[in-house]
Amino acid sequence: MVDGRLYAAKRLSKFKASEIRELLKLTEGKDIISFAGGLPDPSIFDKEDLAEIARNVILEKGDKALQYSPTLGVTSFRQELLKFTASHGVKVKDTDDVIVTTGSQEALYIIGRVFVDPGDIVIVEEPTYLAALNVFRQYDANLIGIPIDNEGMRIDILENVLEDLNKKGLKPKLLYSVPTAQNPSGVTMSNDRRKRLLELAHEYDFLIVEDDPYSFFLFEEESFDYLKTLDPNGRVMYVCTLSKIMAPGLRIGWVVADKSIISLLELAKQAIDLHTATLPQYIAEEALRQGVVAKTISRAKVLYAKKRDAMLKALEEEMSDIATWIRPIGGFFTMVFLNDKDIDTYDLMYEAIEEGVAYVPGKSFYVNPERGKHSMRLNFSYPTIEQIWIGIARLSKVVRKHLAVKQVERT
Amino acid sequence: MVDGRLYAAKRLSKFKASEIRELLKLTEGKDIISFAGGLPDPSIFDKEDLAEIARNVILEKGDKALQYSPTLGVTSFRQELLKFTASHGVKVKDTDDVIVTTGSQEALYIIGRVFVDPGDIVIVEEPTYLAALNVFRQYDANLIGIPIDNEGMRIDILENVLEDLNKKGLKPKLLYSVPTAQNPSGVTMSNDRRKRLLELAHEYDFLIVEDDPYSFFLFEEESFDYLKTLDPNGRVMYVCTLSKIMAPGLRIGWVVADKSIISLLELAKQAIDLHTATLPQYIAEEALRQGVVAKTISRAKVLYAKKRDAMLKALEEEMSDIATWIRPIGGFFTMVFLNDKDIDTYDLMYEAIEEGVAYVPGKSFYVNPERGKHSMRLNFSYPTIEQIWIGIARLSKVVRKHLAVKQVERT
Repeated sequence: MVDGRLYAAKRLSKFKASEIRELLKLTEGKDIISFAGGLPDPSIFDKEDLAEIARNVILEKGDKALQYSPTLGVTSFRQELLKFTASHGVKVKDTDDVIVTTGSQEALYIIGRVFVDPGDIVIVEEPTYLAALNVFRQYDANLIGIPIDNEGMRIDILENVLEDLNKKGLKPKLLYSVPTAQNPSGVTMSNDRRKRLLELAHEYDFLIVEDDPYSFFLFEEESFDYLKTLDPNGRVMYVCTLSKIMAPGLRIGWVVADKSIISLLELAKQAIDLHTATLPQYIAEEALRQGVVAKTISRAKVLYAKKRDAMLKALEEEMSDIATWIRPIGGFFTMVFLNDKDIDTYDLMYEAIEEGVAYVPGKSFYVNPERGKHSMRLNFSYPTIEQIWIGIARLSKVVRKHLAVKQVERT
Repeated sequence: MVDGRLYAAKRLSKFKASEIRELLKLTEGKDIISFAGGLPDPSIFDKEDLAEIARNVILEKGDKALQYSPTLGVTSFRQELLKFTASHGVKVKDTDDVIVTTGSQEALYIIGRVFVDPGDIVIVEEPTYLAALNVFRQYDANLIGIPIDNEGMRIDILENVLEDLNKKGLKPKLLYSVPTAQNPSGVTMSNDRRKRLLELAHEYDFLIVEDDPYSFFLFEEESFDYLKTLDPNGRVMYVCTLSKIMAPGLRIGWVVADKSIISLLELAKQAIDLHTATLPQYIAEEALRQGVVAKTISRAKVLYAKKRDAMLKALEEEMSDIATWIRPIGGFFTMVFLNDKDIDTYDLMYEAIEEGVAYVPGKSFYVNPERGKHSMRLNFSYPTIEQIWIGIARLSKVVRKHLAVKQVERT
């Protein structure tokens, strides 16, 4: 043992392993149906086209595609990303700029690094994206969770919270939202709430992170505008990723925001990894230009809609007497809430793995874990439809067994 | 303007733009011979082989190569990296493990994040690698620079510094070294000093970062052991990169260290970018297996040796009466010291760019910038031999002009 290593102990407490990852380790090598991850179905990857693109990019542009590149990202790729963002319906302003990040995870990390000092107030939806919570916690943010319903974040509650903070002379620095096809719940914020949120951001002077990995997969007609589009004064940082619509293995995310914000992110990124890998940027640029990404999105949308339907039907048949769930209008996930609120799904996890099924316990998505303990997040993008049916049946069995044991203990 | 953005001001002071990068911006679009960067000559990239490998990897292993992958790195690639590291002469212990990073820049950043708290003492060579200095400064380290000579870090001076610190009840947390073909000076630490350094690390209980991007390019017979090899008790983190020996555009670095250290780095990396891009890892794994990297190294070594010789000859012919320089035994750089110690090469930079030549002012490589102000780092790996000759002639002209003006001002 090296004594010097103990120095790290103080900081170590900040570096908690993600529960998803720890959970996945338990399932390794076992025959388990996993609803735990957030992986795209690999059948959506356009391998033929991407193989040709990769080959040509290296042969024809290898001198640049294999070389160092700017911290902001490859210039021609950034232009392509701005075009793509705009064509997706996000209004890009003259004052906006874009930075390429190593997945949207790095975007969140850098935003935390630049904007969040210890004790700063960061507002999030509750439940919200696990990895965003972990980033803000690493920066010792003071997290406040605002509940969601079928129209997204409860802006009326947010308003009360802001007023209360204001009375104490406090204000939030950031508000983090996944407004469209939210992770983990699959709901989308209504336009009225979006507009009011931006008014509040202006009134109480905070910045908004609009994390948008899932708006490409809306299974039903939805009418809404992106926060970035509604934003009159450069308060919104729009974060997107190619992980769900092209391939996670390229690790490409990006942020569109006011130039002044992008410069701050650039300086922070420089010390972290100098720049995002060049070759994947060149490949992605060509894939966007040739319409490969658009094709992947169409194909994936049809596939994921079918899988969502299968999961909803399976839940209906197997669990309607013991649980409720959110009907996701898009994205990769649904949240299931057990009727028996005393059950902690974290404790149930080990039995579930025994039974051959995995999920992420709801606690992980809450600022206050108590509020989410009887819930679980289920992913439907990765398992096959057959696996969805079998997996939900297994899950139902696990919960029923647990309920029966509880019943016996009580009597 | 958004008031909220001003919040960032406090943190901003930490995010100083790298002077190399700012300098490079000045040279954009101009006809300038640049000795400023640290880029490999793109002619060493094995485009044909890499194009085929990329194509095959996507076609045959696309389901995995385009998907998310573990934070530690793709398992089969990590095995290949350990094998490669061992075959390069670095002794890998049973207790050692490896983590793949997004370039060695991210390795340094993560090491800083895990080990360096504000005020912690970090010891570096002086001059040393600019980007390492910047990382440790961002973590508010208390930096101490130890001078180097032709045998590397002056271990006798280090010993005095450690004794002094010890008397004050202080000890360093980390020592950062590029012991082989050092950046920026090109010198290599002698084996006696390496052994003594490890004894001191044990005696005074600190960890060592052995940053090793350049040991593949030793132009002369050198007999030495890696610090990692000499290390009896797991104090050394060995950091390496494929940027100089394969392609920087893949952004692949790695750290070999005791398992207990690697786990800490893994937890920190998870929040930063989840994992390094998967596709480049699969490409690099094949390139290592098929011997593409080995071929690239042999080709590059011959090329860079010629370029170094050209630079040394050009310096001899053009500047021997106004400067001295280190004769690099390997790597990408030499350091030039002007005889007139009052000249600040930072001020000279703008005149140099006017004249069509760029370099990095020596100050940037020193803990105490004053000590390096009359020096400059020159890169010889990227410019052509013709450009080296023309560039050094231009540099000579700039210095002479400056000396002449000073002369006139004095009289």
